Amino acid sequence: MKSKSDVFTRILTALTISPFVVLCFVSYKSLVGLVATVVFFASYEYLTFSLKGHGHTIVRLLVNTLVVLSTMFYGLALEKFVYSNDNAKRPELVFLIIMIAISSIVIFSIKDPKKAKDFVVNGIFSLFYVAMNLSFFFPIYLKFGASLALLTLVSVWVYDAGAYFIGMRFGRIRISPSYSPKKSLEGVIGGFVTTFLFFLIYETAREILLSGEIFTLSAVNSLILSAVVAFFGTVGDIVESSFKRYHNVKDSGSILPGHGGMLDRIDGLLFVVPMFYIFLILFS
Amino acid sequence: MKSKSDVFTRILTALTISPFVVLCFVSYKSLVGLVATVVFFASYEYLTFSLKGHGHTIVRLLVNTLVVLSTMFYGLALEKFVYSNDNAKRPELVFLIIMIAISSIVIFSIKDPKKAKDFVVNGIFSLFYVAMNLSFFFPIYLKFGASLALLTLVSVWVYDAGAYFIGMRFGRIRISPSYSPKKSLEGVIGGFVTTFLFFLIYETAREILLSGEIFTLSAVNSLILSAVVAFFGTVGDIVESSFKRYHNVKDSGSILPGHGGMLDRIDGLLFVVPMFYIFLILFS
Ligand SMILES: [Mg+2]
Ligand SMILES: [Mg+2]
Repeated sequence: MKSKSDVFTRILTALTISPFVVLCFVSYKSLVGLVATVVFFASYEYLTFSLKGHGHTIVRLLVNTLVVLSTMFYGLALEKFVYSNDNAKRPELVFLIIMIAISSIVIFSIKDPKKAKDFVVNGIFSLFYVAMNLSFFFPIYLKFGASLALLTLVSVWVYDAGAYFIGMRFGRIRISPSYSPKKSLEGVIGGFVTTFLFFLIYETAREILLSGEIFTLSAVNSLILSAVVAFFGTVGDIVESSFKRYHNVKDSGSILPGHGGMLDRIDGLLFVVPMFYIFLILFS
Repeated sequence: MKSKSDVFTRILTALTISPFVVLCFVSYKSLVGLVATVVFFASYEYLTFSLKGHGHTIVRLLVNTLVVLSTMFYGLALEKFVYSNDNAKRPELVFLIIMIAISSIVIFSIKDPKKAKDFVVNGIFSLFYVAMNLSFFFPIYLKFGASLALLTLVSVWVYDAGAYFIGMRFGRIRISPSYSPKKSLEGVIGGFVTTFLFFLIYETAREILLSGEIFTLSAVNSLILSAVVAFFGTVGDIVESSFKRYHNVKDSGSILPGHGGMLDRIDGLLFVVPMFYIFLILFS
């Protein structure tokens, strides 16, 4: 049970940060900057708790830099090739190049067989789990525009808030006693309903505000996407919680007052972004 | 130092298997089958030694099946979309879907916080390290044809053989005492020269045999690609050796008499395939 002042801090942090985050969706390049920044902190936290006590701080920071670079290069490469009809250029290769670079650097700089594998495996895990997942904001933005990219992010915020407050008030049936004892089925359902209502409002607003021919979501589309957000947002959150249990940490970091770390904040989003894109493609 | 009969077994295994492997390059679909089979065994071995003593065999096998499915789906999706001009369809999403599926399955079936993370992280590592790397045979095949896809594979065989025999005879300067004490700089250089000579022969043969307009490699292209094979083949081999040291295993498996396991056989290839594709794109 959190105290009133904790909830207050949490809301205050959200209100302070969200305007800047939302503003970054104004152009593609600023979105790349935003996503890279978030990847930087989230990946840094993941590598810090996963490689605790392993030393080699410089290697760890270098690996983290490579993870962040993958996001930036992917964002820039995707924009460059998306308008060409050359299917042979596969921007996703960026992640494979960085995977190979991380492996090479670790293997030449760490000589202790009891450590090298942890650096390689966790570095590469962070590359795909944090950077590649989150980088799918870029195809969403390029194909469906700023408003749907923003919806991807905000729908997870709305879901989290709905699940948090409704779960706090009515939560009874626990869905993951071993990893996330605070999560309840009531919270998930409450979050799902909240998200669906938000979708309907957001779509109505988009239709009014954006003139011209835009791709709009039907009520059924919105219902399905709300379910996607609820399911994958919850799974993503529990998966990240299981990592924290494994390493015996309470929060992934302390960068966001009231919210714990950056990774704690985006854990649900990580799985939602690529799934959201897939469903948008299916609907379009 | 290996005995004469070991070398004999090694050569015999190679001679028995290589005809079938080469024949699989006759069509795209058979290549997909071949790559999926290799991924199956290599990923199985990786997960077996990485999750030794963790139990939950069924979950481990299920994760492995998902890893193999990613290769097959990617191969089929790539062929389907490569001729369409729709850049929004990104077949690489297959790997993200499987990443999320692996995480979900593990988190709902394993309740022990000291084990769940190992299953998630190693399962997803295997997905990208084994399956996604090796799946880049598919874009090579679709864009550059069977003969260059086959060259990717055979050049690594030639490099390995050259490095092995020349290193055995002249090896003095050790390049990775902590992970691969048998590897020598002389072996790497010998392998590189052998590979380059092989490239020249192979390209001459292709020009004579394949009529019509084909994309041929210049001598400089061949030299660069030989260096790519030598460098990334060696790094890939050392990286995999570091995993075996970490888990105290000698061979990744015992499926190939004289060669150890499947993963031991393809460890260098894993990093060569995507790099080979990138350089082919740069040359074309
Ligand atoms: Mg969490
Ligand atoms: Mg090896």
